[in-house]
Amino acid sequence: MRHLLGIEELDTDKALALLERAEFHGKAARTGEISPGSLRGKIVVQLFFEASTRTRASFEAAAKRLGADVINLSPSSSSVTKGETLLDTARNLEAMKSHAMVLRHPTSGAPHFLARHLRTSIVNAGDGTHEHPTQALLDAFTIRQRLGRIAGVRVAICGDISHSRVARSNALLLGKLGAEVRVAGPRTLLPPRFGEAFGVRVFDRLEPAMEGADVVMALRIQRERLVGSLLPSTRDYSRSFGITRARMRLAKPGALVMHPGPINRGVELEGALADAPESLVLEQVEAGVAVRAAVLEALES
Amino acid sequence: MRHLLGIEELDTDKALALLERAEFHGKAARTGEISPGSLRGKIVVQLFFEASTRTRASFEAAAKRLGADVINLSPSSSSVTKGETLLDTARNLEAMKSHAMVLRHPTSGAPHFLARHLRTSIVNAGDGTHEHPTQALLDAFTIRQRLGRIAGVRVAICGDISHSRVARSNALLLGKLGAEVRVAGPRTLLPPRFGEAFGVRVFDRLEPAMEGADVVMALRIQRERLVGSLLPSTRDYSRSFGITRARMRLAKPGALVMHPGPINRGVELEGALADAPESLVLEQVEAGVAVRAAVLEALES
Amino acid sequence: MRHLLGIEELDTDKALALLERAEFHGKAARTGEISPGSLRGKIVVQLFFEASTRTRASFEAAAKRLGADVINLSPSSSSVTKGETLLDTARNLEAMKSHAMVLRHPTSGAPHFLARHLRTSIVNAGDGTHEHPTQALLDAFTIRQRLGRIAGVRVAICGDISHSRVARSNALLLGKLGAEVRVAGPRTLLPPRFGEAFGVRVFDRLEPAMEGADVVMALRIQRERLVGSLLPSTRDYSRSFGITRARMRLAKPGALVMHPGPINRGVELEGALADAPESLVLEQVEAGVAVRAAVLEALES
Repeated sequence: MRHLLGIEELDTDKALALLERAEFHGKAARTGEISPGSLRGKIVVQLFFEASTRTRASFEAAAKRLGADVINLSPSSSSVTKGETLLDTARNLEAMKSHAMVLRHPTSGAPHFLARHLRTSIVNAGDGTHEHPTQALLDAFTIRQRLGRIAGVRVAICGDISHSRVARSNALLLGKLGAEVRVAGPRTLLPPRFGEAFGVRVFDRLEPAMEGADVVMALRIQRERLVGSLLPSTRDYSRSFGITRARMRLAKPGALVMHPGPINRGVELEGALADAPESLVLEQVEAGVAVRAAVLEALES
Repeated sequence: MRHLLGIEELDTDKALALLERAEFHGKAARTGEISPGSLRGKIVVQLFFEASTRTRASFEAAAKRLGADVINLSPSSSSVTKGETLLDTARNLEAMKSHAMVLRHPTSGAPHFLARHLRTSIVNAGDGTHEHPTQALLDAFTIRQRLGRIAGVRVAICGDISHSRVARSNALLLGKLGAEVRVAGPRTLLPPRFGEAFGVRVFDRLEPAMEGADVVMALRIQRERLVGSLLPSTRDYSRSFGITRARMRLAKPGALVMHPGPINRGVELEGALADAPESLVLEQVEAGVAVRAAVLEALES
Repeated sequence: MRHLLGIEELDTDKALALLERAEFHGKAARTGEISPGSLRGKIVVQLFFEASTRTRASFEAAAKRLGADVINLSPSSSSVTKGETLLDTARNLEAMKSHAMVLRHPTSGAPHFLARHLRTSIVNAGDGTHEHPTQALLDAFTIRQRLGRIAGVRVAICGDISHSRVARSNALLLGKLGAEVRVAGPRTLLPPRFGEAFGVRVFDRLEPAMEGADVVMALRIQRERLVGSLLPSTRDYSRSFGITRARMRLAKPGALVMHPGPINRGVELEGALADAPESLVLEQVEAGVAVRAAVLEALES
């Protein structure tokens, strides 16, 4: 694998191979086994143009488990503030002989653009409203770990579909792996022709989407961005689309709950439900390190 | 040891064992010996919600000496700015399988709160105005190294007692180890019932506190916070409470001077005195790495 | 070598030895060879008081190639914001037993000041408008790699000479190594008596400086600082001093182009020229890691 730009570009066999290898890393982490150090002496550059705790820390933990050294760069401390173009910044980092560049950027397509111009491997850690492929891989990993399979599993993805790279990457990957994906959100947060484009069923109410679901995935509501324009209030959103224990009765008995984090407790997800046994939230985080280790290891520059 | 939350929770034997082990690390650092790498392959997460040079760098140096990998997170670059709760942030980091979490937080009790909810080891690197246990340990280490003992040593802690976690942790630890602790500060910066609570003598003038002291510890005055409300001016403070060479004559001949840093030269501590042979300021910093290595090594999650 | 403060203080033999050793590191990086780990177990502290991508990342990559651990500190996250003096901050870091301190500071002479007061090795990573010695070393390395020699090579350094530490360090080093250095810039950006001080020819027009040049080095124009005071507009600057393919005809056929980065494309350097085969921009970056590894390795505290 040269890059991981999106689930769009990832074929199914490769995705399954990554999940397989992630299991190895997950087990090693749980047993406290020292990693094989397959990236010993290599440098992974993290170039984050958006704030992030979990994704950056997760990639860093994964890289370090493999023995790699990590260099963290964020625009505030970087020459980007001096007006350099993204491509010049990235070319410079490439010239320092890094094994891979993990990029988070507010512009959809930024990692694809870099991949066309660089020889170094690019891993998309979230580009605008486009894709977040390692999130989808870790979500698939978590579902498979709990349910033993992905094929035939019914997954309801609920919330702000318009702005969610998590929804896009998950719809694509879970679809490729045979799951039945449904998405639901307020009409103002459903992009046109989404169902057609991603082969999923789209609902503007929560109830039909959740019906019979094995897994309900709540998406984060970015309050600061949406309220006042696309949403009247978080309270209003929560009343119609918040995932609660009561509403989980619509899904299959014992259905699981997921969230990519960070959670707005009481907005898109009830706090008590986030902490309940059927919540996979922390397993998702744990899976993240294992999946990212598998991805970084699979790259060949 | 599961956590290091405060000196309050640390029993005396454990404290002495940590000081013992710190001596080993201190010697190894001085001789340039390669560390035993007892944390090789483990991850230490530093979660700092307040600015810090020395404490963060000191923990990082300690962790790296032990072979651990360090992931640094600070609120500005983190999802905390996205409204996630402290507990959710910490749970996420825990799910990445870190060996320990070093926490600095403006809220007193924040590390204790996390320790009640997490399985990972928490090290308090300063919580609000409450405790800073590794600072007290390094101070005790430094005193013992210079004077050969702590029991019976008279220590005067001078300055803003109200807001000082250093004063609290030191009063507790030095007391446990048999020192005679006195504190002194302007009346506006002395918390009520401090003497009773910590078993120390409290003075609102410098002179009686310094009398016969073996060690005088000046605390940092946070000018930006205090002047105009609790202090008329730094000049005024300095005139009554600044530790100077002249005033050191009140203490025992050859008495030692300490400061947790960063120093406001000419405010709470005369510049020339900070650089004098009787100043332990840099020995304190050196001790910090050794003590923190001992602490990180002693944690069992 | 105790410190690397500036080219001023570096003798020619030592400079040549560093370039020699950098070749070893450059080759090792290209072949993917694991580094010798000559700084294994040592700590390199980076203390950056100005924003930087490439220099910080380059030193970090170099240090990590040698097996060192790196602690990054920048004023915003540091106690410098609490009013501590530079010397106190540095002394504290020194007390943590670092192998070397890499310093970038807006004040010319700051690293020299620290070197007078500390025992730890100081590497100047840029001080005010004074020196940037590793940049000059990597530039010399790059020129020698392409042309096989430095002696007798004619180099035209063009742009804001007044504020450029790159111009100063390069004029000194290339001069010591036998190159013929010319500098050119608008009269408002030429410091008085520069030619005399650095033994170079100074021009207030581009054309005579570029005539017969083997290498043309464009300097970055700091738009935010200059326009409105020392420069009427970037457009105006570009018309008279921008390095373009057309203007390169003034230089020797096949002449090379350099830039320390980050580039303002279309201001001091035409974008197409920056990407052309005669541009050494990315080779300079690659050389940076090799040169810095050689420097860090050569330090003896």
